[in-house]
Amino acid sequence: MQNMTPIQRLSRTFRQNSSLAKMLIVFTVGGGGLVACSDAKSDDGINIVNPSEVDDKNKKKRVVVLGTGWAGTSFLKNLKDPSYDVQVISPRNFFAFTPLLPSVTVGTVEARSIVEPIRNIVRKKNLNVHYWEAECYRIDAKNKKVYCQSNLAGDPNQIEEIVVDYDYLVVSVGARSNTFNIPGVAENCHFLKEIEDAQKIRRKIVDCFERASLPNLSDEERKKILHFVVVGGGPTGVEFAAELHDYVTEDLVKLYPMVKDAVKITLLEATDHILNMFDKRITAFAEEKFQRDGIDLKTGAMVVKVTDTEISTKQVKNGGEISNMPYGMIVWSTGIGTRPVIMEFMKQVGQGNRRVLATDEWLRVEGTGDIYALGDCATINQRKVMEDIWAIFQKADKDNSKTLTVKEFQETLKDICERYPQVELYLKNKQLSSLIDLLKDSKGDSSKESVEVNLEEFKAALSQVDSQMKNLPATAQVAAQQGSYLADCFNRMEYCEENPEGPLRFRGEGRHRFRPFRYKHLGQFAPLGGEQTAAQLPGDWVSIGHSTQWLWYSVYASKLVSWRTRALVISDWGRRFIFGRDSSGI
Amino acid sequence: MQNMTPIQRLSRTFRQNSSLAKMLIVFTVGGGGLVACSDAKSDDGINIVNPSEVDDKNKKKRVVVLGTGWAGTSFLKNLKDPSYDVQVISPRNFFAFTPLLPSVTVGTVEARSIVEPIRNIVRKKNLNVHYWEAECYRIDAKNKKVYCQSNLAGDPNQIEEIVVDYDYLVVSVGARSNTFNIPGVAENCHFLKEIEDAQKIRRKIVDCFERASLPNLSDEERKKILHFVVVGGGPTGVEFAAELHDYVTEDLVKLYPMVKDAVKITLLEATDHILNMFDKRITAFAEEKFQRDGIDLKTGAMVVKVTDTEISTKQVKNGGEISNMPYGMIVWSTGIGTRPVIMEFMKQVGQGNRRVLATDEWLRVEGTGDIYALGDCATINQRKVMEDIWAIFQKADKDNSKTLTVKEFQETLKDICERYPQVELYLKNKQLSSLIDLLKDSKGDSSKESVEVNLEEFKAALSQVDSQMKNLPATAQVAAQQGSYLADCFNRMEYCEENPEGPLRFRGEGRHRFRPFRYKHLGQFAPLGGEQTAAQLPGDWVSIGHSTQWLWYSVYASKLVSWRTRALVISDWGRRFIFGRDSSGI
Repeated sequence: MQNMTPIQRLSRTFRQNSSLAKMLIVFTVGGGGLVACSDAKSDDGINIVNPSEVDDKNKKKRVVVLGTGWAGTSFLKNLKDPSYDVQVISPRNFFAFTPLLPSVTVGTVEARSIVEPIRNIVRKKNLNVHYWEAECYRIDAKNKKVYCQSNLAGDPNQIEEIVVDYDYLVVSVGARSNTFNIPGVAENCHFLKEIEDAQKIRRKIVDCFERASLPNLSDEERKKILHFVVVGGGPTGVEFAAELHDYVTEDLVKLYPMVKDAVKITLLEATDHILNMFDKRITAFAEEKFQRDGIDLKTGAMVVKVTDTEISTKQVKNGGEISNMPYGMIVWSTGIGTRPVIMEFMKQVGQGNRRVLATDEWLRVEGTGDIYALGDCATINQRKVMEDIWAIFQKADKDNSKTLTVKEFQETLKDICERYPQVELYLKNKQLSSLIDLLKDSKGDSSKESVEVNLEEFKAALSQVDSQMKNLPATAQVAAQQGSYLADCFNRMEYCEENPEGPLRFRGEGRHRFRPFRYKHLGQFAPLGGEQTAAQLPGDWVSIGHSTQWLWYSVYASKLVSWRTRALVISDWGRRFIFGRDSSGI
Repeated sequence: MQNMTPIQRLSRTFRQNSSLAKMLIVFTVGGGGLVACSDAKSDDGINIVNPSEVDDKNKKKRVVVLGTGWAGTSFLKNLKDPSYDVQVISPRNFFAFTPLLPSVTVGTVEARSIVEPIRNIVRKKNLNVHYWEAECYRIDAKNKKVYCQSNLAGDPNQIEEIVVDYDYLVVSVGARSNTFNIPGVAENCHFLKEIEDAQKIRRKIVDCFERASLPNLSDEERKKILHFVVVGGGPTGVEFAAELHDYVTEDLVKLYPMVKDAVKITLLEATDHILNMFDKRITAFAEEKFQRDGIDLKTGAMVVKVTDTEISTKQVKNGGEISNMPYGMIVWSTGIGTRPVIMEFMKQVGQGNRRVLATDEWLRVEGTGDIYALGDCATINQRKVMEDIWAIFQKADKDNSKTLTVKEFQETLKDICERYPQVELYLKNKQLSSLIDLLKDSKGDSSKESVEVNLEEFKAALSQVDSQMKNLPATAQVAAQQGSYLADCFNRMEYCEENPEGPLRFRGEGRHRFRPFRYKHLGQFAPLGGEQTAAQLPGDWVSIGHSTQWLWYSVYASKLVSWRTRALVISDWGRRFIFGRDSSGI
């Protein structure tokens, strides 16, 4: 390589000395007082090895990770134990910060600003990590193999087949958009799960405006073309509708003044309210704001059919009236379904009759010993207290007296709460039953501590506990926490084998190696457009308005995966603020 | 609309007060001392009218502009006379700053940073301008109509037909990539003319690296996949090869260290040297630099066939040996060809036997009265002196003596030079012939001024003049100057009808309305990678190296179409400098 020029040297200095680069960004970007805290890693320790080495017999345990979404990436970022040989397989060679996808659909943020190459993420780690851009189409749990295909040549005759052996498999392939088999949805609707989806939607919006601006169209045709329908009143659908409304009113009306009166945005929701996983105050605020903004909110409307020109809905109540609306574009954001590869895998492991892949509380797929599943592709099948009530009673009844003293119960309570988190939740949230009352009041009072209950009384006291169980939502937050939890388990696998730190095994001997996964809800945002956001924070704290928008900016900026994406997203926001959003059809 | 919040108000203030925004950018971007001079226009005077008004009978002359490339956009930007009704038709609703396309292929600059919506450009003008996103497929010169199609619904059943009448037609549709009908080129090569081409190339480069990183490949296969072939040693091909080399050595080797030794870049050129329109010093420097960089430069190699796995070349000299090379990607950048719509149009106007659409020196299509063609889709057919020699002689021979005194010739010389620029060029560049010598020496010397020549002597004296004629290169610079020249003619159409300012009509009566178009060469850059650029500036001034790269940065930043694109491109450069280029496969 030739001698470096001063400019090359300066550039290299910047890239190698990350703190210098960071300082420069902090000075350059100046994105409105945002405090973007650092979690960047140092740059050394490039350890990607030659794929041929993989074939070498080595004694390292082979961990295969499927998918580079929130769960898979979080696992990789938190894995520290260098004694694994890690192979990552995903059709996308990047991680995408999906909470900003609705912003990408209208160009508030650029697609490339929210992605980070997975190779960039893993090369900063002192680990053996190989990445292969391929899609897993079959998991063979019996022979511990995954079968993948890679079509990078873009030619059906040049598809590469890859078969990989594993010792541990981490399945984090995410989910697909759910069309509920409603006719015409797959063919005519846009989805909003992948980066490509957002890019297509952006192009389509501009196409609709250009098309409506063509001469010789009737007013009716113009209105049809500029009728944007959003199906699904969850956070994604609501945020997209809000972003679209901002794009239209802030930017597009200036460039297409002649068609601005023809624009209409309709939001369809099958239940009675939008954002129904949020506090009622947020729902009410959002519905009111949408009404003021002129977004046509149709609740209780279920989509029954979509053709290339019309969408048909049926009123859930009031006689089920069916109505047809012509549309220009539909964005479908109603929920998630299981990917085919997971469906096939579920049959193999005896879960063929379930809708979603089930794991135990340690994220291990039920029916397997070395396959973990996390993120949107699986749910945790929390064990019911009632199923184990006899085993619990026996474990707690240390003197085998067939009755349980409060003291005995108290000694086991920590393990019970850890193993069955619904018990803890029940203690916190609900009217305490007599037994629990007793437990609380009896502490230190030896007369009360000797009160005894038999199995039937114990069962009766805990009979309502399982009603506390809820599936975790399919959010980035859950997936990320699961990824980091599992990485932590892998990091301490050997140590915890010797020194188990989990709760008592009520149905077996000894203790579980690890504590079960526990989700810690950090709150959720619902951006509503017009620089207003609603947030539901832990402790049922609700915050709505402009200040929440700034909180949203700060949190999202700090959560972005790298300093690069952070700088890009913040500069995108700044650019939108100054120049507005671009409407070039690219 | 609801009351604006302080943030919305601030944002609006920024966007309406452009100088405030500009100041902020100058402070924010701080792109290394770049002086980006302003040519922004004020924001008021939004005059896009409802398309239905177009159908109204109004007395405004209808000008139809086809295409929104350099020529068309430059025409629109410089048109000032509000007495026209302008309709712009183009399949691309944006203007792209094409000189930065090679940078887009590797992500040094983002695609969206170099485009500006055409509606944004025209809405700032005090003109009636309508834009329609459609592609012209037929020009009917006889009935003064253009036929266009728009497929914005993306559905072959929903194509919109648009027929537009014109009084003046400005054809600036550009050219297509020329495959020279070499088999397999159209199917297997990437081109580099449009934004979409650059985006596809970027994706393909990353795909090649991912594919070569897959396990179970032989070294030979890896080398094939990572063999990048660039065909064409013109400025675009050379710049792309240089950008690709920088991308590989500066960014990709870090993420794909295991395949870096398999990468090879080959540049094929049919003539003996690359960059042969440049000074020899530049060619030599570029060839040497490429050799040092390890780019395999094959000159004198003509491509004869491309299959999906191999490219076949034939040596132009030395017996015409044919060799086959396996490849991973080919970028084809050899020259331009005529678009089908122009071919068909040429037949209509009696130019069916030509290769390229010909215009006169006023950019009017030969064989028509009201159709102008500019940019890459046409060439100026400069009238030969020898064709008009008798007419010139007659006009100059004011006393009809059948002989020309030097005094008479001198009086006509200005008109001759204006009408036949080759004469002026000849006077400047070549050894002066006896007549011209005489002309120069005779000034003010009445004895010499009365020297006479007859037609034969006059013809002999001017016989070599036409050898000076050259077609203008198909560059952005030529197209932009033609657009602004034509707009200037349109701006003064009425005035110049009354007060013609052009040269004498040698074959007719009176004077031409306008001076003919004259191209002013402002120099040309050839970026060579590694922060080095070569430039050939007017007066044969040659500059090569790092300082020229900074000149390139400055000139390109200042030439960008808007303050928005300027800020974006400069921040892209800054970002590349700090973070390197992104390699996500999106």
